[in-house]
Amino acid sequence: MITLNDAKKVTSAAEKKAVEIGQPMNIAVVDSGGNLIAHERMDDVWIGSIDISIKKAFTSRAFDISTKDLAIQSQPGGQFYGIHVSNNGKVIIFAGGIPLRREGQVIGAIGVSGGSGEQDQSVAEAGAAEF
Amino acid sequence: MITLNDAKKVTSAAEKKAVEIGQPMNIAVVDSGGNLIAHERMDDVWIGSIDISIKKAFTSRAFDISTKDLAIQSQPGGQFYGIHVSNNGKVIIFAGGIPLRREGQVIGAIGVSGGSGEQDQSVAEAGAAEF
Amino acid sequence: MITLNDAKKVTSAAEKKAVEIGQPMNIAVVDSGGNLIAHERMDDVWIGSIDISIKKAFTSRAFDISTKDLAIQSQPGGQFYGIHVSNNGKVIIFAGGIPLRREGQVIGAIGVSGGSGEQDQSVAEAGAAEF
Amino acid sequence: MITLNDAKKVTSAAEKKAVEIGQPMNIAVVDSGGNLIAHERMDDVWIGSIDISIKKAFTSRAFDISTKDLAIQSQPGGQFYGIHVSNNGKVIIFAGGIPLRREGQVIGAIGVSGGSGEQDQSVAEAGAAEF
Repeated sequence: MITLNDAKKVTSAAEKKAVEIGQPMNIAVVDSGGNLIAHERMDDVWIGSIDISIKKAFTSRAFDISTKDLAIQSQPGGQFYGIHVSNNGKVIIFAGGIPLRREGQVIGAIGVSGGSGEQDQSVAEAGAAEF
Repeated sequence: MITLNDAKKVTSAAEKKAVEIGQPMNIAVVDSGGNLIAHERMDDVWIGSIDISIKKAFTSRAFDISTKDLAIQSQPGGQFYGIHVSNNGKVIIFAGGIPLRREGQVIGAIGVSGGSGEQDQSVAEAGAAEF
Repeated sequence: MITLNDAKKVTSAAEKKAVEIGQPMNIAVVDSGGNLIAHERMDDVWIGSIDISIKKAFTSRAFDISTKDLAIQSQPGGQFYGIHVSNNGKVIIFAGGIPLRREGQVIGAIGVSGGSGEQDQSVAEAGAAEF
Repeated sequence: MITLNDAKKVTSAAEKKAVEIGQPMNIAVVDSGGNLIAHERMDDVWIGSIDISIKKAFTSRAFDISTKDLAIQSQPGGQFYGIHVSNNGKVIIFAGGIPLRREGQVIGAIGVSGGSGEQDQSVAEAGAAEF
């Protein structure tokens, strides 16, 4: 189980990284059921990326994969092309979502949105590393 | 404008009250646009109240009213009966959402869900008082 | 954790009860995250109750309460009136959903739909009793 | 008409195949109206594939075609490109959904999700073969 305290550590580490790279972000953490534990939006971030951060976290847990890796398989011609319309629009297929593992098992995920794909990914990695 | 820092003060104050009354809660803060700034789910809270806390905050800002007061006007026979199906299902009409004011102007809202209506209201009030 | 095997025992017990009272049913079981583990529709049941059975199970887990009890608090004037439009339409507020507990803790739920409220409830109880 | 008993034979055969290839799956069966008869989620399967299995079955019956074949026509440039956003998000365009035929006529479908496209397909075929 991920406690709120665990989740706050993850969002804090991600937030620190976002400050470091000078790109404010939306940061979200979900539990093993894909349900939200914590979300925060830093100042001056796109409001359209609130939803995306939460759904990246959901997606990473829903398929136990980073959204960056899922993206590869979900392109036209890929084996999962079209997956982005499943789950009532909750599947996001670009970088920024990373599963959170404990003892090898996925028990949640972090989702980050607000910058470029590369920036989102680096901030998500910083958050996941804290876990 | 409500900064993330402001929002964290509000959620912290609400969280403290929730601990005090022994009822874990979902706590959410939205900005003047009704868009989420921060959400947190305390440990062992109903997963169904995640969504409700966020939507109570939206509702309070959407109509610049506490959801407790909106509830009165939204009962069968009331002048706003049926409002709960508007806004694509984002309107919640029971206690726990309170507008956040600065210099008399509503610039956001807090939404709390996880306990009885009375408990939700008291925790939301504690959060709003901090603002 | 509820295994598929556990879920099948629950649906079998519910199905047996449905046969006994002569009312075919939809029967669904969800896990602690509110996510579906198993669903079955007996022959000659309303197709509109497929969705309802799954959502009753979700609702019971989402608020750790039977939908029969939630119904009381969700009537006009009640403290949770309007809750049925939250969670993107996944909340059902009439009898037939019951939490599944292990060692006192809710770890999932059963949802039954296809007959009268009383019939749904009795079949759900038979399923839950097997858990 | 597909009875619940028929559907259970199909899911059992599919489940057996899934065990054989060592890949747990979500397995769903729908009737001629595209409505769910049975769903089961084996242990330790992605929660994001619950929805996909059910929608693959729907899609296969909706267009009387395997989702693997539909995928070919639904790629960018294909004659059905964009079909995945129709039907309120219920159309899945990758392998794992297969129509169920009796005397040459499609009277339902099976949908499988939880592994690679190839694995989903092989498990769906095993289920359909039992029909």
